[in-house]
Amino acid sequence: MITRSLQPENQETPTQFIETDLIPSHLFYRRNHFSYPTLSAANYWIPLNGSVNTPTLFSMQDILQLPSKTINVVLECAGNKRSLFEPKVFGEQWGKGAISQGAWKGVPLRALLELAGIKDGAKEVVFEGYDFGKRTDLDRVYTFTRSLPIAKALHPDTIIAYEYNHQPIPFKHGFPLRLIVPQWYAMASVKWIKQITVINQSFKGPYQSIDYVYYPHKETNEDARPVTTMNVNSTIQKPLDRDILDTGKHLIKGIAWTGKGTITKVEVSTDNGQTWSNVKVNKGDNKGYKWVSWSHVWVIAEKGEYRIMSKATDSFNRVQPLTPLWNRKGYGYNAVDEIMVKVE
Amino acid sequence: MITRSLQPENQETPTQFIETDLIPSHLFYRRNHFSYPTLSAANYWIPLNGSVNTPTLFSMQDILQLPSKTINVVLECAGNKRSLFEPKVFGEQWGKGAISQGAWKGVPLRALLELAGIKDGAKEVVFEGYDFGKRTDLDRVYTFTRSLPIAKALHPDTIIAYEYNHQPIPFKHGFPLRLIVPQWYAMASVKWIKQITVINQSFKGPYQSIDYVYYPHKETNEDARPVTTMNVNSTIQKPLDRDILDTGKHLIKGIAWTGKGTITKVEVSTDNGQTWSNVKVNKGDNKGYKWVSWSHVWVIAEKGEYRIMSKATDSFNRVQPLTPLWNRKGYGYNAVDEIMVKVE
Repeated sequence: MITRSLQPENQETPTQFIETDLIPSHLFYRRNHFSYPTLSAANYWIPLNGSVNTPTLFSMQDILQLPSKTINVVLECAGNKRSLFEPKVFGEQWGKGAISQGAWKGVPLRALLELAGIKDGAKEVVFEGYDFGKRTDLDRVYTFTRSLPIAKALHPDTIIAYEYNHQPIPFKHGFPLRLIVPQWYAMASVKWIKQITVINQSFKGPYQSIDYVYYPHKETNEDARPVTTMNVNSTIQKPLDRDILDTGKHLIKGIAWTGKGTITKVEVSTDNGQTWSNVKVNKGDNKGYKWVSWSHVWVIAEKGEYRIMSKATDSFNRVQPLTPLWNRKGYGYNAVDEIMVKVE
Repeated sequence: MITRSLQPENQETPTQFIETDLIPSHLFYRRNHFSYPTLSAANYWIPLNGSVNTPTLFSMQDILQLPSKTINVVLECAGNKRSLFEPKVFGEQWGKGAISQGAWKGVPLRALLELAGIKDGAKEVVFEGYDFGKRTDLDRVYTFTRSLPIAKALHPDTIIAYEYNHQPIPFKHGFPLRLIVPQWYAMASVKWIKQITVINQSFKGPYQSIDYVYYPHKETNEDARPVTTMNVNSTIQKPLDRDILDTGKHLIKGIAWTGKGTITKVEVSTDNGQTWSNVKVNKGDNKGYKWVSWSHVWVIAEKGEYRIMSKATDSFNRVQPLTPLWNRKGYGYNAVDEIMVKVE
């Protein structure tokens, strides 16, 4: 793990070194706004209230008895790769490891909403976490609270999860219950759920209206828009940036993922982007909400410095751009991935 | 620990988060050229041969029975902070954590050399480690082998160490015996010592004549000179780079160290280097070969972006420069340390 801060705890997954596609929880990146909350699982209830016919208190027992599903999901922090923005932006300087993947088991949120009965005019569902603290910019204590539009809340794969990789969710990742929102950046997947509220308007909490917003301009809030689905993206795992290699055969490998549809193509360039080759994508990965692994054998006879780049395309024809969309808070970096190597 | 590579294992100490001045071995940075060697401590002998009157085989028992000393030493990889060079250079992209500090106990090398008797005309002492492997640039297997000039070899604080922080040296850090060369960059402190040889000429192995050489020019080897003593240097531990802070009082803290004499002054600037303040240095640290801790209370009322810089001076009047000495292999980075923070 690569530590970015300890209070609150923010650590990256060493993605470059990981071979497995179900990341064990001790290697799962940790991204927190606040200190870890204290809560008692022994007496744990989730209230579902607001614009519903029957406000309901769900016990853990209630949730465990409902039909469950297990989904494999990439969770990527909206700030993943933030340190790559030029000009640089403030905030946690994530490298390429604020991303992870694993199997989450839980109950579709939809089932809980149907039990309580959503009233007409309901627009969003708000999730409050147990974690709280002060912000630097506002003089008040806030819990980490976010909302989903009603359509995403009703999506059958938006789940209230209680297991990660076939074990109870580790405390640091949201025990006992965590919202899992596939395809969205991971700020949407609220940990340590305290309550769920259906509302008739747009939720305006600071983690929705101030943070997790793309601000394309440094000085003004013009053209701001919310951070939602993950951009199409890829990361080169091997070789490492600035590696020194000998001449001969080398395996270039990595991962690619998207928040819309599936990955349809990964291309690699070893000549500064002049030519691109389609590379081998592990098709078995391309189901559910997983990343795909890809690899390419590179035979290099000539000594010199080489820029290796990877570019993914998804089934909505979204392609990684050469230049990222710069935004003041540094979200959603997805430019073509690149590393430099020296062959000697 | 921050992983830079796994084969061989290269990991950084999370220096920014460390409060103690004796770094526990599991947090000690790891820098290897090769895979870990296999060797048997049960049947471990060190030959001391070459230009000596009595070539001698020392057993562990022999070494443990000689008078010992314990010294507190900063060990810094010559490539520490390499990733900060502009233009970027190839090799392990170390951040600011390829540095550590602890208590090493062992026998002065001098005692062994005196027992064997150095012949007239001896110029250097060569240390061969058990670790070996192929280089990318030469078509042969090499052990990691380095030499010291005879004067440094005879320095009473150059020791053959067998304990780290009052425990046997952990295997990854050179068990059972490791050379410790205070004040030099840590490539000199050869791990897993296999043999010691006194020679009458200059040693020319690749880890001395190709690597660990400052090459100030990109294309030629002109003005090359060997990497030896550590440059005067400092690192800001807190705040973290690109942190977002509120207005008010903040502690700026860090460490400073040098390979010549002691640290005499640490200055901090919070206004882009226009003005500098002498900061509080923990004088208790300034003995042996330790780093010093320093801190400064910063009261900031005005919102904005701030560049925080630290600059150390040693007792030989060496001062951290504003611009590092760029060199092709990226050694000895010691420019004034700097971070950016945003106050909101």
